[in-house]
Amino acid sequence: METVAVLLLTCPDQKGLVAKISQFIYSNEGNILDLNEHVDPEEEIFSIRVAWEMKHFNIPFSDLPGTFSSLATSIGANWEIYSTGQKMRTAIFVSKYDHCLQEILWRYSIGEFPIEIPLIISNHETLQPLADRYGIPYHIFPITGDNKSTQEQKELALLEQQNIDNIILARYMQILSPMFVQKYPNKIINIHHSFLPAFRGANPYKQAYIRGVKIIGATSHYVTEELDEGPIIAQDIARISHKDSLEDLKQKGRDLERLVLARAINHHSNRRVLVRGRKTIVFE
Amino acid sequence: METVAVLLLTCPDQKGLVAKISQFIYSNEGNILDLNEHVDPEEEIFSIRVAWEMKHFNIPFSDLPGTFSSLATSIGANWEIYSTGQKMRTAIFVSKYDHCLQEILWRYSIGEFPIEIPLIISNHETLQPLADRYGIPYHIFPITGDNKSTQEQKELALLEQQNIDNIILARYMQILSPMFVQKYPNKIINIHHSFLPAFRGANPYKQAYIRGVKIIGATSHYVTEELDEGPIIAQDIARISHKDSLEDLKQKGRDLERLVLARAINHHSNRRVLVRGRKTIVFE
Amino acid sequence: METVAVLLLTCPDQKGLVAKISQFIYSNEGNILDLNEHVDPEEEIFSIRVAWEMKHFNIPFSDLPGTFSSLATSIGANWEIYSTGQKMRTAIFVSKYDHCLQEILWRYSIGEFPIEIPLIISNHETLQPLADRYGIPYHIFPITGDNKSTQEQKELALLEQQNIDNIILARYMQILSPMFVQKYPNKIINIHHSFLPAFRGANPYKQAYIRGVKIIGATSHYVTEELDEGPIIAQDIARISHKDSLEDLKQKGRDLERLVLARAINHHSNRRVLVRGRKTIVFE
Amino acid sequence: METVAVLLLTCPDQKGLVAKISQFIYSNEGNILDLNEHVDPEEEIFSIRVAWEMKHFNIPFSDLPGTFSSLATSIGANWEIYSTGQKMRTAIFVSKYDHCLQEILWRYSIGEFPIEIPLIISNHETLQPLADRYGIPYHIFPITGDNKSTQEQKELALLEQQNIDNIILARYMQILSPMFVQKYPNKIINIHHSFLPAFRGANPYKQAYIRGVKIIGATSHYVTEELDEGPIIAQDIARISHKDSLEDLKQKGRDLERLVLARAINHHSNRRVLVRGRKTIVFE
Repeated sequence: METVAVLLLTCPDQKGLVAKISQFIYSNEGNILDLNEHVDPEEEIFSIRVAWEMKHFNIPFSDLPGTFSSLATSIGANWEIYSTGQKMRTAIFVSKYDHCLQEILWRYSIGEFPIEIPLIISNHETLQPLADRYGIPYHIFPITGDNKSTQEQKELALLEQQNIDNIILARYMQILSPMFVQKYPNKIINIHHSFLPAFRGANPYKQAYIRGVKIIGATSHYVTEELDEGPIIAQDIARISHKDSLEDLKQKGRDLERLVLARAINHHSNRRVLVRGRKTIVFE
Repeated sequence: METVAVLLLTCPDQKGLVAKISQFIYSNEGNILDLNEHVDPEEEIFSIRVAWEMKHFNIPFSDLPGTFSSLATSIGANWEIYSTGQKMRTAIFVSKYDHCLQEILWRYSIGEFPIEIPLIISNHETLQPLADRYGIPYHIFPITGDNKSTQEQKELALLEQQNIDNIILARYMQILSPMFVQKYPNKIINIHHSFLPAFRGANPYKQAYIRGVKIIGATSHYVTEELDEGPIIAQDIARISHKDSLEDLKQKGRDLERLVLARAINHHSNRRVLVRGRKTIVFE
Repeated sequence: METVAVLLLTCPDQKGLVAKISQFIYSNEGNILDLNEHVDPEEEIFSIRVAWEMKHFNIPFSDLPGTFSSLATSIGANWEIYSTGQKMRTAIFVSKYDHCLQEILWRYSIGEFPIEIPLIISNHETLQPLADRYGIPYHIFPITGDNKSTQEQKELALLEQQNIDNIILARYMQILSPMFVQKYPNKIINIHHSFLPAFRGANPYKQAYIRGVKIIGATSHYVTEELDEGPIIAQDIARISHKDSLEDLKQKGRDLERLVLARAINHHSNRRVLVRGRKTIVFE
Repeated sequence: METVAVLLLTCPDQKGLVAKISQFIYSNEGNILDLNEHVDPEEEIFSIRVAWEMKHFNIPFSDLPGTFSSLATSIGANWEIYSTGQKMRTAIFVSKYDHCLQEILWRYSIGEFPIEIPLIISNHETLQPLADRYGIPYHIFPITGDNKSTQEQKELALLEQQNIDNIILARYMQILSPMFVQKYPNKIINIHHSFLPAFRGANPYKQAYIRGVKIIGATSHYVTEELDEGPIIAQDIARISHKDSLEDLKQKGRDLERLVLARAINHHSNRRVLVRGRKTIVFE
């Protein structure tokens, strides 16, 4: 796989944006592999994702942000440039459920995600054997009523020491503190086992069972300080009927959770997600 | 089409229920066409839908409820028996949107629903031409801030005079009063343009647009006194993305609304729905 | 709605394509509303759809093809430019089934498709009343064993006289001759009532019923000389079970056919479809 | 979990079938947990699945077939009775792909299937480590051009010795000989990576890619002597677009294959599938 540069950019809409950006790439001998743009006609905001080959590109990746910044400034843009040569360093947080971790580690092992997983953090020892099987260090930080803040500090220290950029909550059953969340804005991906905004909070399958819905869902979103209110990355659903017990809902839900979380990780790690306010643009 | 009897019954679970009910039918020379039962293992409640041919059946339909009642009493059942020979007399309530009315009248015209539609009620004159095209009387009861109660009384009088058993709210934009709703318990079907319980109340597409969900839905349910909280009959969803404007959501939603409402009318009019508390059993 | 130009273009992949095309638009004061491109990495073919506002654009639409052609030639492109100011003149062909025609005419009447429907052609008189209701001229060309060629000549003369660019076969039950098809390459849209390539040819629901599939489908595609083998524009499916009779399959299928055909018309009439060999690129 | 008896029965339709069967259960103090029947109105064939508690049932399971047979004979039935106390002894056949085996073993390990897996058979050593992880004996029978018949004999001997009733082909890349297939009629479950009957045989993803379909599928079916023509148990689909490479199809297909195969195993092992000719009745 050759190295590819990915630009994610958003700015006020104006004439010539695609021309300017593509000209920047072309004039430096870049070959565009994928370009995806969106204009929000209401808010008049332009957003773009462009990927181009770094091979034969005149500017080394290390100089790219510096070189691009004058154009970016002239159009009033928020932007980030990534190289596929730099894998996203990602930590997974889990508690006791294994299905999401299984799924992620299996896909990771066959190379589906362009990420590195240097460590797994858990508040329980339950999933240590699964982590061992894939040879990934597993760190246990038990959370009790009053040690949360201290433990989070330790976790943050570990994450920093390991240069972790992104976090996946793979059915991690603790609520992260605002302090923690603020360190990783739009970098923490959660899977919630309902079709948000329906059934926020605890026991969504039980809520769904009691309400008698005919469809259940799962939602993967970025974690913000407000519980289950962060920008949604991916959602999917499964049909249920009166025949399904609460246990059946959980079982069908497990399959949803695994797939929706995997899809979100895919989008996020391939730099296909741009967050604007409470919403995401997913350049598929 | 030959006449068929349909029994919908629910009672505390106990041994021998299927044997007793099927023996009742068999001993009277009935041939079962379709039998569908469900045991709620938690609440220990038995529910059944049985359909059998009335041809060669020993008991005329008019005597059937009387004859069946002693068995029903002995097992402590709530039950109803219907004949497909008696079409459900159904009124449709509309406001200005035509898509749901279009859909229902077209399906009605090709015989998809075992119902009769003797009248349409609206608070606007907008859809009169559509009603005319299908030759169905269209009654206008404009609703203003302070005449709702009077108008509802007139509507009820008309419904009673026309022997209406069931009501379909095909995007009727008025909230029926509790007094009205209580006259037709589990007999009024509504289509709500969201995936309930998400986005209750007004402007669900706008709510969905603002929240940035990746899937929209529609829900058909029985109307109860609590807004958008009645037992759900059918739900479906459509995928959306950041490219969809609010207008696109409404357009995609129209297709959902039409199909979900049609499905609910199908289930209801074929006597496939049994309401238990806040939930439905749909014997598909 | 303001006038928008839409360019559909395909050419061998090479550096600078987006830059050149967007620069052409920008230098003439065009504002890009939507840009969607695709590079086929295997065949090294670049494809693009760009839409920009004609308001304030320096070149009148009538001169646009002429002005653009030198750039197009220099990159070896196949291309077409459309103006949303020119509605696609479209004829609908039907036989006896009304569901697809109903659907198209209703969506047409509420402005969902940027097309004009100056006429409907049928080999039966059955749907004349439906055409009348929407005020669209309905021409009957009965087809017998030996008059097909003559009738097609008359149809073609009528289509030419009416300046028809595109044809929708809305469950038209005759096979068009190769001579006819060649006059409208990638301009005739058909709806086939199966999940192609499964169940080509006659009676696909019966074939599906006999095979015992658990899912049925519908496929909308461009008509080519080879029956049911043209480039696919849209497909969708519905779940079925052993409970569904052949009649149920047809009923569920009708809903699929309507929606899939409508989706294909939407894509095609908004100039979102680019045909490459046996496949389509649908720029959604 | 208490022991439950499951009767699967099919016979010519006639009056009193449900009455007779349910009376048999009731008169022996059985409590019906689940009853599901179907009448094919065209062929006039009755099919039923009944499950009842063995606790308090008058007849021990070992005597049940003998006791039931006189009723069964009197109605001309084909039938089988199973006890949930006897887990289905199941062998898995694999080649090199791990995704289906991963999925089955994980679900098996959390108790989702009422089966026992005493052994895995493969023509390659590739998946030995995965089998080891779950502690399941892994037997390698390499297949070359001319040893197939001999190797199949050895496999059959091993299966017989291990009392294997059912076989799952989890992307096993060899075609079983008719002789082998005949030993396990309607007992061998395969997963084919297409939406059958489309794309039978080799390389279905490539076939789908070349044809330009907009949806791919997976099909789980019983193996018969005719390749990819056996009775279908479960199917599902995923949407694709022109953006998806052949590699993407395979990746999306993997997720489908896993879920569809798991669903088929669920239906089959819970004795919910009744085969009639080329079709299945799945009593969900």
